[in-house]
Amino acid sequence: MAAEIVNPRSDGNTGTDEGAGSAPDGTFDPAFALHRGGKMAIRATVPVRDKDDLSLAYTPGVAKVCSAIAEQPELVYDYTWKSQVVAVVTDGTAVLGLGDIGPEASLPVMEGKAILFKQFGGVDAVPIALGTTDTDEIVETVIRLAPSFGGVNLEDISAPRCFEIERRLQEALDIPVFHDDQHGTAVVTLAALRNAAKLTDRSLGQLRAVISGAGAAGVAIAKILIEAGIGDVAVCDRKGVVSADRGDLTDVKREVAGFTNKGRLTGSLEDALDGADVFIGVSGGTVPEEAVAKMAKNSLIFAMANPTPEIHPDVAHKYAAVVATGRSDFPNQINNVLAFPGIFAGAMQVRASRITEGMKLAAAEALAAVVADELSADCVIPSPFDERVAPAVTAAVAAAARAEGVARR
Amino acid sequence: MAAEIVNPRSDGNTGTDEGAGSAPDGTFDPAFALHRGGKMAIRATVPVRDKDDLSLAYTPGVAKVCSAIAEQPELVYDYTWKSQVVAVVTDGTAVLGLGDIGPEASLPVMEGKAILFKQFGGVDAVPIALGTTDTDEIVETVIRLAPSFGGVNLEDISAPRCFEIERRLQEALDIPVFHDDQHGTAVVTLAALRNAAKLTDRSLGQLRAVISGAGAAGVAIAKILIEAGIGDVAVCDRKGVVSADRGDLTDVKREVAGFTNKGRLTGSLEDALDGADVFIGVSGGTVPEEAVAKMAKNSLIFAMANPTPEIHPDVAHKYAAVVATGRSDFPNQINNVLAFPGIFAGAMQVRASRITEGMKLAAAEALAAVVADELSADCVIPSPFDERVAPAVTAAVAAAARAEGVARR
Repeated sequence: MAAEIVNPRSDGNTGTDEGAGSAPDGTFDPAFALHRGGKMAIRATVPVRDKDDLSLAYTPGVAKVCSAIAEQPELVYDYTWKSQVVAVVTDGTAVLGLGDIGPEASLPVMEGKAILFKQFGGVDAVPIALGTTDTDEIVETVIRLAPSFGGVNLEDISAPRCFEIERRLQEALDIPVFHDDQHGTAVVTLAALRNAAKLTDRSLGQLRAVISGAGAAGVAIAKILIEAGIGDVAVCDRKGVVSADRGDLTDVKREVAGFTNKGRLTGSLEDALDGADVFIGVSGGTVPEEAVAKMAKNSLIFAMANPTPEIHPDVAHKYAAVVATGRSDFPNQINNVLAFPGIFAGAMQVRASRITEGMKLAAAEALAAVVADELSADCVIPSPFDERVAPAVTAAVAAAARAEGVARR
Repeated sequence: MAAEIVNPRSDGNTGTDEGAGSAPDGTFDPAFALHRGGKMAIRATVPVRDKDDLSLAYTPGVAKVCSAIAEQPELVYDYTWKSQVVAVVTDGTAVLGLGDIGPEASLPVMEGKAILFKQFGGVDAVPIALGTTDTDEIVETVIRLAPSFGGVNLEDISAPRCFEIERRLQEALDIPVFHDDQHGTAVVTLAALRNAAKLTDRSLGQLRAVISGAGAAGVAIAKILIEAGIGDVAVCDRKGVVSADRGDLTDVKREVAGFTNKGRLTGSLEDALDGADVFIGVSGGTVPEEAVAKMAKNSLIFAMANPTPEIHPDVAHKYAAVVATGRSDFPNQINNVLAFPGIFAGAMQVRASRITEGMKLAAAEALAAVVADELSADCVIPSPFDERVAPAVTAAVAAAARAEGVARR
């Protein structure tokens, strides 16, 4: 059943026949070399060696399988790859640090995401970069695609459209819809913060956090920290603390002002950092050292902007008890790949109709627990290559889905 | 670059963990057993073993590849799988002999198609079964998906919508759009008919053909036979010969009446068969033996309905020089898999903007030529497993695309 068809796709793989290794200008570049011809392929998981195979996998044998699904729609999960395939959907408007580069140019990232899904979660994923940036069109397109997929991972769609698109798709569909830039980041951040708090003998309830960045990641981190019981959290955009008294807020930021900032802070990011326990940077700006110096003792600094952290780790370490970044060349990398593969694998394993807040919290707890026994200032979160991660997150998410009544098996 | 990542997807492959082999009712059935968990998977074609790999395949390395494509859009073909991936698009309205069974129930067929693309053409293919049957919605949805794919194979969409959908997508997109139920069938039929004519020492121009069935396949076969120079061809629907004097014709059938039936036949299928040289059945009806007996000497009978040919081969052989069917258990199987993998592989190899009539005719000629040296009444078309087929069709289609000026490289 799992025999692999080996096919020398010399005719079909049209991307690789001009000599691998060359950048567009003809020089050698390892990143271009690796990307030539793309990073992924389809493989058959059943044999098609002879006409007997063909008559089972295709006509006439396939007809009875189709008829069974037509009669009993849930069987589509048993007899097709729907049960294990996620659409990685983007419109190319907020790709990495590059911004709105369009759907074609976003494809290398979506393929990268797809192979991470496979490598780390055993989940199949298909890049779907859409030729529209219209909210209504994206929503209706994904709804029409949904019969073919078991889940939808929204990716690199700019705020604030990403919030509405996710909400409307979650309302319309009975499969998991998850905007990774929001919730993947939030889950991993929460996991690291749990461990950092534990390491410094505090509960989340004792911490006051400041988030720099009110985009997809910042808003989602604020939400999950509140759900997890953080003492207080203020979210800052370029104009300072997002607070109800500001007259320039978008709908989403008004909502953020409503559920954050119990302390009624106003003013700049630097003002908010005065005495704060936690800094979480998802903005790409820089924070002056004077502001860092004014944070509370034993501060926890997560400066996650890539490639340039908001606070350089060398500076952060002068003041903080724990420092995390988004980079792989420093300890404590806050990397979404720690979350999304296991979250989808767990949700799809039990055929969850959605990914609930409880499932995200469970993912964060499981992720934090992986390094419980080796906790240190340089290890509040596992490495992306820690093989314990995906199974732990998968199991926790599946169990939470069952507990919350969204599992279909 | 082509190292395969082996991943024991025990967590992700949610379809297979209940014990393979069981039909929905718990009995053993080899077709259900084979389909459990689906028939396909994604594989990474680049390694993701450590953080160096990750930093090339994903951030930060991927950013320069994205930027290059943003500057020079054609590079998407060099550095993503777009150059080798086809969307297999259906709305589930005309699936095999089952009819309108909906998108989910059509998925086993689309997955089967996808693995045939891979196995026979080295082309990656992704099943896209849409949750809409509205012509406008299907067209706009596929247009929005197009940035992610190098080609679109339309499949099992009912007539007459399939004609309009294909035409509008061909006008809107600069990638190959091909409705296999029409053109795949037409190409293979023409190839077999060329060889059958040759075997009986006739040119196509000397033959008068009758097609039973005025749906997707029948219309496309009529068109390609005329392009190839058939003497005459009449198309029959349930009410008889499609002729201009009938008042009940759809737009498409009116068009068919305009370019077929030079002999101005009217009346029933049986009437049309009187003295005809060729019968082509794509209808699912049955033809009485008396009608077969009235065909011309050395008749060629292609009774392609599945699973029940319009004329049983045992009956056909009493009168015909060559008999073909759609079934694998008789000689001369008219099977689309002989055409679509090579047609897409050839078109995509040269980055053709469309699949022209000339490319289809070239495919048919190449396919016919594969068995030129072993021609016999039981061998007018190669076996689907003849390994010469896909390379021959691929090369012919690529050459024709270049000759016709639709190749981009």
